[in-house]
Amino acid sequence: MKIIVDGMGGDKGYKEVVAGSVEAIKELDVNILIVGQEAIIKNELSKYEYPKDKIEVLNAEEVITNDEEPAMAIRRKKNSSIVIGLKALSDNLGDGFVSAGSTGALLAGGLFIVKRIKSIERAAIATVYPTVKGISLLVDAGANVDCKPEYLQQFAIMGSIYCEKILGIESPRVGLVNVGTEEGKGNSLVKEAYDLLKKSDLNYIGNIEARDIPNGIADVIVSDGFVGNVVLKLTEGMALSIFTKLKEEIYKSQISKIGALLLKPQLKSFVKLMDYREYGGAPLLGLKKPVVKAHGSSDSLAIKNAIKQVVNFVDKNVINMIEEDINKNTSI
Amino acid sequence: MKIIVDGMGGDKGYKEVVAGSVEAIKELDVNILIVGQEAIIKNELSKYEYPKDKIEVLNAEEVITNDEEPAMAIRRKKNSSIVIGLKALSDNLGDGFVSAGSTGALLAGGLFIVKRIKSIERAAIATVYPTVKGISLLVDAGANVDCKPEYLQQFAIMGSIYCEKILGIESPRVGLVNVGTEEGKGNSLVKEAYDLLKKSDLNYIGNIEARDIPNGIADVIVSDGFVGNVVLKLTEGMALSIFTKLKEEIYKSQISKIGALLLKPQLKSFVKLMDYREYGGAPLLGLKKPVVKAHGSSDSLAIKNAIKQVVNFVDKNVINMIEEDINKNTSI
Repeated sequence: MKIIVDGMGGDKGYKEVVAGSVEAIKELDVNILIVGQEAIIKNELSKYEYPKDKIEVLNAEEVITNDEEPAMAIRRKKNSSIVIGLKALSDNLGDGFVSAGSTGALLAGGLFIVKRIKSIERAAIATVYPTVKGISLLVDAGANVDCKPEYLQQFAIMGSIYCEKILGIESPRVGLVNVGTEEGKGNSLVKEAYDLLKKSDLNYIGNIEARDIPNGIADVIVSDGFVGNVVLKLTEGMALSIFTKLKEEIYKSQISKIGALLLKPQLKSFVKLMDYREYGGAPLLGLKKPVVKAHGSSDSLAIKNAIKQVVNFVDKNVINMIEEDINKNTSI
Repeated sequence: MKIIVDGMGGDKGYKEVVAGSVEAIKELDVNILIVGQEAIIKNELSKYEYPKDKIEVLNAEEVITNDEEPAMAIRRKKNSSIVIGLKALSDNLGDGFVSAGSTGALLAGGLFIVKRIKSIERAAIATVYPTVKGISLLVDAGANVDCKPEYLQQFAIMGSIYCEKILGIESPRVGLVNVGTEEGKGNSLVKEAYDLLKKSDLNYIGNIEARDIPNGIADVIVSDGFVGNVVLKLTEGMALSIFTKLKEEIYKSQISKIGALLLKPQLKSFVKLMDYREYGGAPLLGLKKPVVKAHGSSDSLAIKNAIKQVVNFVDKNVINMIEEDINKNTSI
């Protein structure tokens, strides 16, 4: 198997990508094709000891940044690592693609170059969501801010398959984010989506309230990309704010500083729960080939885990399963 | 001034409402009219020492519960404390209304009996949102799950006035919940709302991301009722989950238990930040008279604070200001 890796994406730059790729080939049975500025990447690779035939480099001079308008960037920067990487994927030069670059550009490029699975209305970003009980999968985390009920139904189907095959959760509980748990609650979008999901053969548990999400009430959390993005970012913001405030309070007294010291291992294991690096990246579901977005601030560990994830994505044949299920389940 | 209080609302029942009302007349210059089952409430009142002429009771035999469909309950239970209380308000038997009962019924009753201010398209629920820097006001917290851009504009205007007059925040910063901060981001609803808000004479700071809400980025957080409800409930859920998990981790070792003990005052002052009882209730903005929803699990302190809040609501002439501003600002 060969995984294509965007050498230029991510806030921490090519060094972490190269380090993560080297770690990956040592740990996994995989070859890697790094796409990016050849000279720089080859120079960085020369610092490592590894089986040389396992990593190739494909030159791509341009870099798409996070500030650029995604669709425009994909059209204009034909020599960017994202465009060349996705083209390589589409041309079967590799089996999956990982990038820590612009989410919007990766999505736009994925739709434009790799293309959607037949019968899939919209591709979605799925994100692993750490809960106090383990992990859930949130779909859509922000790709589609305006949705139709049918899209939500397809997000649920794709999320359920991914959750079962890649996260290893058997018969995942699928919940629809709503303002109340009762049937008939919600805006017109979720009311219609509720009915579609009820008819599906998913393990659908109905409406879920946002207050129960961090508690792990569902394995697959389904919402439109606007609400999903709000859920994801508010969760991050709450975790950060609570810890910052707690720290502030702790530093007000000597005694509490000692208290915090005694609590250190507990606080550490708690923070680890929230560590995105442990969970790999966010798959783009609905495309014809496996594409995974690694976190923007990925270090080598996060890159390696994202590569591992896309290896799994390929191995478990998730895309074929989505194709089959979507035709069986979908009402479109 | 006379405030009408729903004697039967709230999970903790009439005892806390009576206790809170007695506390209120002792602390504030206010008369109270408690609406509910007269015999029970008078019996409860007889347990307290207070100036008898300051609290009256208006009989209402029925009670609307949280499980009932709001609009139906309002139509059917003409003798409920909410319907009789709101009618009393509409008939000028009091200046404002407080209830810890069903939010939906209070809203439905408010719209049906008290009615909307002229030119106001939709009434909204505004909730005080505790942040690490202080408090913000979230509008709409769940009254309107399907919104038009103009509603959001009006929520912003009403929220801004309430925030300034009642929460005492001068020239409150108004932020629109969105998936990114840049202009042009978001779904079709918020894109149009953005343009309307930009033209208003509010202190509009533009789009805000959910991750910055707990950090106090805006004084008035504007969203449709679906997103607002998700924000509110996820915030509660995150706070609860983080504390539960932290406690679990702490109880795993003796040393960490000692650590937690040393941290107790800090943890306590932190939890106080999140204590809804400190902040009074949620005003229903857009009605012709002041109506405040107290938290469902209100104790006497929370009831007293909600009464104090509605006294302020009347005193500061918020409704007149909304009427004036809505005609000046609104594009409808």
